[in-house]
Amino acid sequence: MSEQPQTVRMRTALQAYLDALNRNDADAVLALYNDNPTVEDPVGSPPLVGRVAVEAFYRKVAAMPLRLELAAPIRASHGNAAAMAFDVLVGVPGQGQRISVIDVMTFDADGRIASMKAYWGPEDAKPL
Amino acid sequence: MSEQPQTVRMRTALQAYLDALNRNDADAVLALYNDNPTVEDPVGSPPLVGRVAVEAFYRKVAAMPLRLELAAPIRASHGNAAAMAFDVLVGVPGQGQRISVIDVMTFDADGRIASMKAYWGPEDAKPL
Repeated sequence: MSEQPQTVRMRTALQAYLDALNRNDADAVLALYNDNPTVEDPVGSPPLVGRVAVEAFYRKVAAMPLRLELAAPIRASHGNAAAMAFDVLVGVPGQGQRISVIDVMTFDADGRIASMKAYWGPEDAKPL
Repeated sequence: MSEQPQTVRMRTALQAYLDALNRNDADAVLALYNDNPTVEDPVGSPPLVGRVAVEAFYRKVAAMPLRLELAAPIRASHGNAAAMAFDVLVGVPGQGQRISVIDVMTFDADGRIASMKAYWGPEDAKPL
């Protein structure tokens, strides 16, 4: 556990998450998660529970051509959660989408991500 | 209950929420909430539960000089929740703050807000 305030650690983790996906580095994304994570992406779909399901999800995501662009500065909170608004450009122009997302992550006491929820709806995905 | 898709209703409600606070119109904000709402602002503080507590909160907020500016387009979801990143400018220059926030609202079947969580931390509030 680092000496940094939890808010700084959460912000750093969210930036690292974006950076890792922008390198298509699933291992680096997965290293940010704890041992029993849940992922709900998009919110409204059945949550993925546990490392195996979450790892399969990020292996699939990281294998795609994609770029994540922060839309506004990362927010922390006074609790164990942080949030960020970003756009995901997935695929190639003419055959891809720009999806506008807000992710909310909760963190455990060790500063690892315990849960992720991705808020985006049908109208938030537009052709590239 | 309107005929609009839930995603459109949620987006409309979030925009109406911003507009109402920008008019300092607590009644209009409260009309967006259902009869048993919860508000956690900021996330990490004790949630306000029920109309009385939530009304007192918005009466206090709406009495302040404030302006809300959307930082990125409102996101809906595939479920009953929507989210938005915005800045709140509260007070007057030299004696005020710009607070960078992400709000997540959940909605009931009638399209009214059931819960609000505001993600912002100590470093997200900066002098105006």
